[in-house]
Amino acid sequence: MRVLVLNGPNLGRLGSREPLVYGDTTYDELVALCRAANPEADVRQTDDEATMIGWLHEAADSGAPVVLNAAAWSHYSIALRDACSQLTGPLVEVHISQTAAREDFRHASVVSAVATGTITGLGVDGYRLALDWLGRL
Amino acid sequence: MRVLVLNGPNLGRLGSREPLVYGDTTYDELVALCRAANPEADVRQTDDEATMIGWLHEAADSGAPVVLNAAAWSHYSIALRDACSQLTGPLVEVHISQTAAREDFRHASVVSAVATGTITGLGVDGYRLALDWLGRL
Amino acid sequence: MRVLVLNGPNLGRLGSREPLVYGDTTYDELVALCRAANPEADVRQTDDEATMIGWLHEAADSGAPVVLNAAAWSHYSIALRDACSQLTGPLVEVHISQTAAREDFRHASVVSAVATGTITGLGVDGYRLALDWLGRL
Amino acid sequence: MRVLVLNGPNLGRLGSREPLVYGDTTYDELVALCRAANPEADVRQTDDEATMIGWLHEAADSGAPVVLNAAAWSHYSIALRDACSQLTGPLVEVHISQTAAREDFRHASVVSAVATGTITGLGVDGYRLALDWLGRL
Amino acid sequence: MRVLVLNGPNLGRLGSREPLVYGDTTYDELVALCRAANPEADVRQTDDEATMIGWLHEAADSGAPVVLNAAAWSHYSIALRDACSQLTGPLVEVHISQTAAREDFRHASVVSAVATGTITGLGVDGYRLALDWLGRL
Amino acid sequence: MRVLVLNGPNLGRLGSREPLVYGDTTYDELVALCRAANPEADVRQTDDEATMIGWLHEAADSGAPVVLNAAAWSHYSIALRDACSQLTGPLVEVHISQTAAREDFRHASVVSAVATGTITGLGVDGYRLALDWLGRL
Amino acid sequence: MRVLVLNGPNLGRLGSREPLVYGDTTYDELVALCRAANPEADVRQTDDEATMIGWLHEAADSGAPVVLNAAAWSHYSIALRDACSQLTGPLVEVHISQTAAREDFRHASVVSAVATGTITGLGVDGYRLALDWLGRL
Amino acid sequence: MRVLVLNGPNLGRLGSREPLVYGDTTYDELVALCRAANPEADVRQTDDEATMIGWLHEAADSGAPVVLNAAAWSHYSIALRDACSQLTGPLVEVHISQTAAREDFRHASVVSAVATGTITGLGVDGYRLALDWLGRL
Amino acid sequence: MRVLVLNGPNLGRLGSREPLVYGDTTYDELVALCRAANPEADVRQTDDEATMIGWLHEAADSGAPVVLNAAAWSHYSIALRDACSQLTGPLVEVHISQTAAREDFRHASVVSAVATGTITGLGVDGYRLALDWLGRL
Amino acid sequence: MRVLVLNGPNLGRLGSREPLVYGDTTYDELVALCRAANPEADVRQTDDEATMIGWLHEAADSGAPVVLNAAAWSHYSIALRDACSQLTGPLVEVHISQTAAREDFRHASVVSAVATGTITGLGVDGYRLALDWLGRL
Amino acid sequence: MRVLVLNGPNLGRLGSREPLVYGDTTYDELVALCRAANPEADVRQTDDEATMIGWLHEAADSGAPVVLNAAAWSHYSIALRDACSQLTGPLVEVHISQTAAREDFRHASVVSAVATGTITGLGVDGYRLALDWLGRL
Amino acid sequence: MRVLVLNGPNLGRLGSREPLVYGDTTYDELVALCRAANPEADVRQTDDEATMIGWLHEAADSGAPVVLNAAAWSHYSIALRDACSQLTGPLVEVHISQTAAREDFRHASVVSAVATGTITGLGVDGYRLALDWLGRL
Repeated sequence: MRVLVLNGPNLGRLGSREPLVYGDTTYDELVALCRAANPEADVRQTDDEATMIGWLHEAADSGAPVVLNAAAWSHYSIALRDACSQLTGPLVEVHISQTAAREDFRHASVVSAVATGTITGLGVDGYRLALDWLGRL
Repeated sequence: MRVLVLNGPNLGRLGSREPLVYGDTTYDELVALCRAANPEADVRQTDDEATMIGWLHEAADSGAPVVLNAAAWSHYSIALRDACSQLTGPLVEVHISQTAAREDFRHASVVSAVATGTITGLGVDGYRLALDWLGRL
Repeated sequence: MRVLVLNGPNLGRLGSREPLVYGDTTYDELVALCRAANPEADVRQTDDEATMIGWLHEAADSGAPVVLNAAAWSHYSIALRDACSQLTGPLVEVHISQTAAREDFRHASVVSAVATGTITGLGVDGYRLALDWLGRL
Repeated sequence: MRVLVLNGPNLGRLGSREPLVYGDTTYDELVALCRAANPEADVRQTDDEATMIGWLHEAADSGAPVVLNAAAWSHYSIALRDACSQLTGPLVEVHISQTAAREDFRHASVVSAVATGTITGLGVDGYRLALDWLGRL
Repeated sequence: MRVLVLNGPNLGRLGSREPLVYGDTTYDELVALCRAANPEADVRQTDDEATMIGWLHEAADSGAPVVLNAAAWSHYSIALRDACSQLTGPLVEVHISQTAAREDFRHASVVSAVATGTITGLGVDGYRLALDWLGRL
Repeated sequence: MRVLVLNGPNLGRLGSREPLVYGDTTYDELVALCRAANPEADVRQTDDEATMIGWLHEAADSGAPVVLNAAAWSHYSIALRDACSQLTGPLVEVHISQTAAREDFRHASVVSAVATGTITGLGVDGYRLALDWLGRL
Repeated sequence: MRVLVLNGPNLGRLGSREPLVYGDTTYDELVALCRAANPEADVRQTDDEATMIGWLHEAADSGAPVVLNAAAWSHYSIALRDACSQLTGPLVEVHISQTAAREDFRHASVVSAVATGTITGLGVDGYRLALDWLGRL
Repeated sequence: MRVLVLNGPNLGRLGSREPLVYGDTTYDELVALCRAANPEADVRQTDDEATMIGWLHEAADSGAPVVLNAAAWSHYSIALRDACSQLTGPLVEVHISQTAAREDFRHASVVSAVATGTITGLGVDGYRLALDWLGRL
Repeated sequence: MRVLVLNGPNLGRLGSREPLVYGDTTYDELVALCRAANPEADVRQTDDEATMIGWLHEAADSGAPVVLNAAAWSHYSIALRDACSQLTGPLVEVHISQTAAREDFRHASVVSAVATGTITGLGVDGYRLALDWLGRL
Repeated sequence: MRVLVLNGPNLGRLGSREPLVYGDTTYDELVALCRAANPEADVRQTDDEATMIGWLHEAADSGAPVVLNAAAWSHYSIALRDACSQLTGPLVEVHISQTAAREDFRHASVVSAVATGTITGLGVDGYRLALDWLGRL
Repeated sequence: MRVLVLNGPNLGRLGSREPLVYGDTTYDELVALCRAANPEADVRQTDDEATMIGWLHEAADSGAPVVLNAAAWSHYSIALRDACSQLTGPLVEVHISQTAAREDFRHASVVSAVATGTITGLGVDGYRLALDWLGRL
Repeated sequence: MRVLVLNGPNLGRLGSREPLVYGDTTYDELVALCRAANPEADVRQTDDEATMIGWLHEAADSGAPVVLNAAAWSHYSIALRDACSQLTGPLVEVHISQTAAREDFRHASVVSAVATGTITGLGVDGYRLALDWLGRL
């Protein structure tokens, strides 16, 4: 089953970005981890909101399930939320760090209310769990 | 009279996007509706904030009136607001749905305070009314 | 088509009331403007909440469309909101000034959530647009 | 024992007004219900705040107990609250619907703190219970 | 008709507990009052949240109507609210004192929104009225 | 000099209304006190918002100074505020009690920001001081 | 009758200080105005909170009435409020400007709740009115 | 590996409790599901806060990993949070429903900040994913 | 003099529980410390709210002074507050850590307003000081 | 051991200042009480913030323990807080009254978070307990 | 020393954009001013968030100091903040206008907390000062 | 050009005061640094609000530019703000630490809105930059 695994801003720098918070797995390793969990996982990353919106439109059209780590956009991009609302397949939101244990402005995600479910704080394994869950549907 | 009719994120998918909220008029039909109201209406849509800012700069330079449906950006993009503040012609803000009857975060628009006026909840007809009003100035 | 055009407190003094905010069209001119837009427009004004509630009950009974400028009541009269909730025809809320650009307490209207749509900031033309929209339904 | 049963705005339309919320008992049936509970019940309704204030003054002068459904005024009319503060007899506040389960702005009543007690959500039976309670004092 | 009359923390001490607020009726007298109103009233009191939850589960299973005075728990025990949400029979919330006239933290009850109705401030008579209302259903 | 002295809801009952808060001067004595301070004082009282708005319109037309005790309306009637904004003469707001020492909802007056000045807590003498001040302008 | 007229920070510069807000009466003229109203008025000014507290203690001991313009301290100095609470004579708070029409942080005064009354916005005449009122007690 | 799977109030009624929200898996089926994921899973449920605190102390002593669905307690029981803070093994918080899409008071969990990670909205599968994750540590 | 020293949730684990916050004195040592300060000190601990409420009722009946460390319950258990309100002897609230220097939700205690006094941040010595103070009454 | 016992504004008037709140012990008696508890206690009082800051600097230099009753300053003087942050010895904050039971603005102290501990509501005995505690360190 | 001088949305229009707020220096003059201060200053501007994030990643990799005027993004773009958090060299935030004196939503910058320092209100000279400071490190 | 460099409470202890926050430059070194930047810099420090207000009055009279580090007063002393409002020359506010990265109560300064500009977080170099900027005017 094809699944879109969509990553938002700054996630391309995984491994070098604040490793105490995000761990030392690199983005390439993350891609490999997802592929291992689902060989048809289509893993992408962008720092550009319009590109991300386009990918979500693509998923809305195809009905493909989505794993979304919207990173910082989670906390303010209502444009992404509106794109997520159009999805016809399931959406699992993933955060690598435990956002509830960080700054106040990270506690709420505008995406969560339109996601099927959310996994936070379990590191990059969150992606694997999300793919596992989608795979069994 | 040339008028810029500028549409923000997710509006390109009008008709297929949450039709219970936004109606079943397609984006192409919206373009036609605007052209019918004003043959010189220059109707555009983008999911990219920078592109929208550029269009607003273009309007600021030409003095052209603007009809703006900033969609989700209305609720947080101060960058768009700052671009609107530079307009020298009138600006009519349009929302297809009645935002005051939806989620709390849609009740306020950071653009409204720098717009000449705002039309909400009258569906795609809001564009026609805005163009009508600008045409009579 | 008969339409009720209902105006709330202080609007009878249009033209002399804070013309920098509300323009210099007089209330009589507003009535004429509405009649020009729809000869069957029944334009009324009152400073009395009970009278306004009665007019809304009348509209609820007849099913007539309503154009409502509730003026200051918009910001606190839940009694008016409850009367509006009973309407069976469409309701277009109009404000002459751009309320979002004025004092904080004018930014929210308790009526908006039960109105079909809202037009603000386009001056007395807002009435014409509202009547135009209702006329085409 | 004479009791004033005072009803605020929009309650005269009981039965036709949002029956899913307020039930299908008509106002006339409500009057009959009150009279059945207490033949001396003096049941009145007004959409006019000044009239209601006058009735409360009348009760303050006579010492008569009051059953008050202030409807929408409950949420903002401090003028009514001040009139209630002058009552010398007991005051039972009644709401037909369960206000705590509706919009946020209906959760607080400015009248409650100066009422002896409050009954909500039990439909028009709330009036009967209030009259029963007052009758046994 | 069997009705569960459930009382929360500190209510076992009625009569000796802050009589200026709660009156001087003792808990035993309250039980008698309820039995007088409905001989099948099953009146219970507990200071233990788990016990109360269990009683509500019991009512959910039997479909019995419930009169609930959750006392202090009303203001924070979402666990009780969730238990109340499962009830299949009607639920009348009772408070002896007029909570709206006391400390701010007593003004809202997390239970109210899932109760059929609420009676406050009418003293122990609130129980009688609730039982009366349930008896007539 | 003619001055309008306008009194809002419940003030007609001065003397009998909560004398611990408002003192035992009757409304008739208040009228006499005002006349003593300014024989041309035109002292009025109403419980009806529309009547008060009409009196303020009258003052706006004549340019007469106004002494206004809007009582409970002070805390929510934006309609009165809008009427006050149209005044062309000075406006002195008076409150008999020290509102800042009472309930929270009495601490702010929506009228104050459009009044020339405000006198609170000095009892009915506040009217005399206001008339004195206006008399010396 | 000896009255203490106490002025807080920056008031010594009256006349040169923001004359659009505070008028062009100088501090010396203010002193003269107070003396004219009450030859025993003891008018003082300080920028030092401890000095002001000492003066209030002096008034508490003597029972002298106080006219207090605490200026900026009004909005935060709980130390002054506590000193005012000890006064045994009446306290009239005066503000030259209409604080309710200025920045939000000037709308509330921590002193008002422990003052007998407050006069705002009537310019330096506020002092005269306060002295007049105290003189008639 | 032994893992404690701890369930809070009302979860013993899974299957019959609001199935539209929580699904129709019964509590016994949940236990079986956990055992299938980890035969050493020790699955427990209680409506009693003290019992839950005791189980968490037991886990703190043994160092066993914990899967915790604190249900309604998540939103207010700081006592549970303090018990969780003492854990020496990892803690995965699970919610069956997507709490971010429900009432406001369910959006924040006082437990999240002291949990390793959180899984919401994936139904009873959330338990399986949590056990899977713990099993691979 | 007999004094009840009542300890709430998680305090039984003193010494092993977050020693950086609560110190390394064990609960047994705390008991000994209290007995040394007052041989009649009756020191108890429970994780069960109902048990704690029962102990407070016991104290209310006997009039015994109480030293209460309600731990996490301090921040939300209004049921405990209501039990404390019934005490007839003095109540000293103790917290081992300086709660004002910790998370925001620990800054306020719903118990404090009904306690005679409060001692925070002085470690287990707070108990000794409280017993000393009660001993000298 | 030399200890600085520092008292803030209005405390020099202890005994005559609001005795219902602060008791009837005079300031001289408070000094004697402190000296009795610790003959080397250096007890001082000032209404001047700068003087208090200087004393705290003196303590920072000498490393002497401090007992501080900052009175009204506790609620707003961040300058005092910053001075307290520099202390190298322990700091015990004392309040004579139970601040949590008084006005809302007295519930928080900006000093508490940088104090070792706080004692409130135990009257002037709070000083003795603080000195006792410091003496045993 | 090479320094990146990064400018956010609408700053390319400096000189023509609201000159009363931002001054009449053009963007080209700003570039020249920066080059004069540091010939190696690499001055860039973009209206595209992704481009700005990319530039910050570039600086994170090279360790180059950054001068950042994030303009409107300062108030909501957590994505930019996260990019700034990765910088290894110093970051000076610059705003041309005094943001604290403008609309409320401009008072806080989500970037400030992760910047070394911030300069506001000193016009385009702020850039020069920032470059001067970085040059001396 | 003579410039007043005014420092508020606790800044006289620079170097010994929380060096991790404020650095290890002593106050004497700060004075020297300012003199090096502008030999006519008149550098002063006080812990006394009245003294600071007097210095600002002196600057208002002379028209001298001011560099102000109001330290803790920045967050609450409206008296200082009012003194700053009177300045006729430019005012640069300086903070040594990056206040936006510290406690919430340090994020806003009541002085900023009336300062020409603000420099934070650049250590004592902020003074040099401010003097540099003023020197070039």
